[in-house]
Amino acid sequence: MIPIVSVVGRPGSGKTTLLEALLPLLRSKGYRIGVVKHGVHGFDVDKDGKDSWRHAQAGAEVALISTPKGLAVFRRLDQEMSPEELIETYLPDMDFVLAEGFKRERMPKIEIHRQEVGERLLKDEEEGLLAVVSDVPVSTKLPLFSPHGLQPLADLIEERFLRGRSKEEVQLSTDGRRVALNPFVQDLFRSLLLAMVSPLKGIVPFTRLTLRLDIRNEKKAANP
Amino acid sequence: MIPIVSVVGRPGSGKTTLLEALLPLLRSKGYRIGVVKHGVHGFDVDKDGKDSWRHAQAGAEVALISTPKGLAVFRRLDQEMSPEELIETYLPDMDFVLAEGFKRERMPKIEIHRQEVGERLLKDEEEGLLAVVSDVPVSTKLPLFSPHGLQPLADLIEERFLRGRSKEEVQLSTDGRRVALNPFVQDLFRSLLLAMVSPLKGIVPFTRLTLRLDIRNEKKAANP
Repeated sequence: MIPIVSVVGRPGSGKTTLLEALLPLLRSKGYRIGVVKHGVHGFDVDKDGKDSWRHAQAGAEVALISTPKGLAVFRRLDQEMSPEELIETYLPDMDFVLAEGFKRERMPKIEIHRQEVGERLLKDEEEGLLAVVSDVPVSTKLPLFSPHGLQPLADLIEERFLRGRSKEEVQLSTDGRRVALNPFVQDLFRSLLLAMVSPLKGIVPFTRLTLRLDIRNEKKAANP
Repeated sequence: MIPIVSVVGRPGSGKTTLLEALLPLLRSKGYRIGVVKHGVHGFDVDKDGKDSWRHAQAGAEVALISTPKGLAVFRRLDQEMSPEELIETYLPDMDFVLAEGFKRERMPKIEIHRQEVGERLLKDEEEGLLAVVSDVPVSTKLPLFSPHGLQPLADLIEERFLRGRSKEEVQLSTDGRRVALNPFVQDLFRSLLLAMVSPLKGIVPFTRLTLRLDIRNEKKAANP
């Protein structure tokens, strides 16, 4: 699993600003960072993106626009995907994901607090709450950081989630639900598939190998 | 491989309109359709998307915004991905991809022509050119369709690319390059995986099973 930490806080507390400040600090440590944001209002897209969004409205499941500097993907959904599914599908090659929002989901969280926005959002005892960032002194048992000195928070994130982490991954899912694989079973899949792959033509020394198997059970689909 | 067909034509010939007309016709046949567009100017993003794009600029490799009705993903790239890589990464669960542009890439193409925009863009002999859509009579050896009667074109696409196609897929790549697997090797991977998976806890009768294996060769990466 790719580790994920979410920034939570009251509206106006500076969640986006905190994310933007943490990003270069983590990136400069050499990690590939993705950002996932929970929105409620949908989004509008301008210029070239407009056509992509038109396509998505016109019946495409996915519309993608590719440019030399980057790409944008728009996907229609009947129901919202979980943060875990989102990451597995769209950010599988990241080392770490910083999220914004997802206050109710179970995942490690950092609360950002500003004096102007009132009381703190979460209690210290809240499951998964790792640290607090605040522009005023607050009483907390948790590690406390100033929004103007975030390097120690980036170090804490690295220490907790990134250092010494295995970068190999075996992910299995059926109908979008993740199937848990214990380390022994993961090793078994990895060794066996590597052994099968190694004699194939076209396998040269690699930095990164990806195998994706996608199997549809037509019989069950035909008779649900 | 997911089949892809690109709509090409001179500026103003109606590429986007043709895509939008074909989409519901293919969709009503029960296929999941993705759209891929080649842009040259980049894109701007409005409203909620603005933050996602800010994140991407601020050092995230990927920024994703999730809403109840859909999601948007923005990804920075140092070099443009090939249509094949784009589809493998972002549209792996589609049955078919309609593209716009990609005039120079090797893929099956449909040319859209309008009298006002001048001569036709491609010659009949152009590799991969499947059909022509034109609002005026043109001389062509290829199947010719009116933009106002596109059902036969949707039928042709289904016949050529979709009917009887196996929906199972085994994909292998190293460092982003696809490794070709012949049908025998694909079958071997599939059978072995199914046999390994079946005794696992959490495997119930499924419609779709996905395994993703991602291996990084740290030694090679450390001493390039």
